[in-house]
Amino acid sequence: MKIKNILLVSPMYRELQALIEKEARHKTFRFMSEEELSQEDLSWADALVSFNLKAEYNFSSVKWVHSLGAGVDRFLHKKDWNQEILLTRTNCSFGQRIAEYCLSYILKDLQFHDCFQEQQQQKKWAQSTPKLIGEQKVLVYGTGEIGQKIANVFSGLGVDVYGLSLSGKEKAGFKKVMTVDYHFPELNEMNYVINTLPLTDRTEKLFDGSIFNQLSGAGFINVGRGASVDESALLQALNENTVGFAVLDVFDQEPLPDSNPLWNHPKVQITPHISAVTTPSEGAACFLETLKNIDQGKPLSNRVDTKKGY
Amino acid sequence: MKIKNILLVSPMYRELQALIEKEARHKTFRFMSEEELSQEDLSWADALVSFNLKAEYNFSSVKWVHSLGAGVDRFLHKKDWNQEILLTRTNCSFGQRIAEYCLSYILKDLQFHDCFQEQQQQKKWAQSTPKLIGEQKVLVYGTGEIGQKIANVFSGLGVDVYGLSLSGKEKAGFKKVMTVDYHFPELNEMNYVINTLPLTDRTEKLFDGSIFNQLSGAGFINVGRGASVDESALLQALNENTVGFAVLDVFDQEPLPDSNPLWNHPKVQITPHISAVTTPSEGAACFLETLKNIDQGKPLSNRVDTKKGY
Repeated sequence: MKIKNILLVSPMYRELQALIEKEARHKTFRFMSEEELSQEDLSWADALVSFNLKAEYNFSSVKWVHSLGAGVDRFLHKKDWNQEILLTRTNCSFGQRIAEYCLSYILKDLQFHDCFQEQQQQKKWAQSTPKLIGEQKVLVYGTGEIGQKIANVFSGLGVDVYGLSLSGKEKAGFKKVMTVDYHFPELNEMNYVINTLPLTDRTEKLFDGSIFNQLSGAGFINVGRGASVDESALLQALNENTVGFAVLDVFDQEPLPDSNPLWNHPKVQITPHISAVTTPSEGAACFLETLKNIDQGKPLSNRVDTKKGY
Repeated sequence: MKIKNILLVSPMYRELQALIEKEARHKTFRFMSEEELSQEDLSWADALVSFNLKAEYNFSSVKWVHSLGAGVDRFLHKKDWNQEILLTRTNCSFGQRIAEYCLSYILKDLQFHDCFQEQQQQKKWAQSTPKLIGEQKVLVYGTGEIGQKIANVFSGLGVDVYGLSLSGKEKAGFKKVMTVDYHFPELNEMNYVINTLPLTDRTEKLFDGSIFNQLSGAGFINVGRGASVDESALLQALNENTVGFAVLDVFDQEPLPDSNPLWNHPKVQITPHISAVTTPSEGAACFLETLKNIDQGKPLSNRVDTKKGY
């Protein structure tokens, strides 16, 4: 595939320009924000580098699209993707970042941070014994790159990590990998449940009452996609204590609207989609690596299977 | 050494009795709280099993004292210990517990928990990128059992862990071990400083302006002993930002008095000496193991060097 004209559209386009242009002088670039983007730019480009474009565009003359994020649902979910267009995604340090995000909130729970903070405000000295992470069971939905990294970090700390995938294929770091249809009996033993799944037709509203009702007070962490969760089922599960608490980094609508009841729920912790941020330097490095591999006709580890959707 | 009569004095004596008595039927026990303790019990006993006795007692007829905690300063610091009495301490899961305590507060900082919690209260959606733990430098004062466990857990997550000890001897998990007198040039590069040192004449008020003034906003975590910190120097360092924040689990006076200004300082997080709690089952297991080793004349890994004080 011959790539000459590259169009990069991102709110971070200035930082990315500074990092990319000098490393790829044999290419012609246009860097801009979405506000400046016109159909003429898209007709000019061989490649589009972007993430969350808000409007709809005609990509038909582009040969390659590179996502500056790990997720590609914005390009594929409920869309007809032209199979002739190559789609790649950013896969740098997401796994490690997401693993540390999850670990921080699980340790916060095990070490009773909120309880001790409240006691401090009251100058109250009352001991309670934190729980050891090695005595916990964690279930990770998704055993891809991100799920595996979580499993490695947690199993390194002695945690029993269970995985869930479409295939149920065993993967390193997981004690056991189950399939979506056969994991229900294990749910009530889990202390924490983490979603890392991409958004596809099969994962849309996957987390509904049928899963939440099987839990016994587990903490639920969503670092996958917001649309995979039935929000009203989650709120009900929190009120009925089948879900002990929820840490949510992704939402069906982002930014989360002011009117959404999740903001105020005492058992919900909200972060603004920061668990796997692409920093400009990581995003630039991954793009440049992919460009080099394409130029040299090498295999692409970050190529998206556009039929599967991830 | 022949041990027959064993006196156990602890607020948890009932739980310990249930766990210990059935496992050591060939011994004679007395289990009680300190309120019930008399000199007659101490004269009767070959061994005393205890932790934080509040009053002073005459131990002269006891052959062995076993501490139900990791620290033995209550027995040794500023006291004349009769060198004929064997002193052992509990060394079960303290290292792992303390490592997880420290990790939880460091991840809390790196993942901006407080910032996102505040934003949630205001329904504010503003992204900031958490920091990776692998990019941090951590200095651990003390390279004994607890310091080494911290080093192993943190270096397993990619952290550069520096150690500080009297000898400066290299230990596994540490990138570099320094001595008390030669570590000052490294201090300003540290992101986090953790104290695990026992309380001895050499570590009393070790953390004063001479250490704090060399730091550049590092987080300070004390899981060693409260008396190793000069509290007014710490407060000054927090106000001058040489120490970015402090997480304190141990204090010169415990429970921390209501009048202590640490309670209210916005950069101080207080926990009530819970980072290395001995659970009854762990305390019983360690005591029974030590008793068995003494009966069989085996070497004792948890024997205290009463001259060094740890």
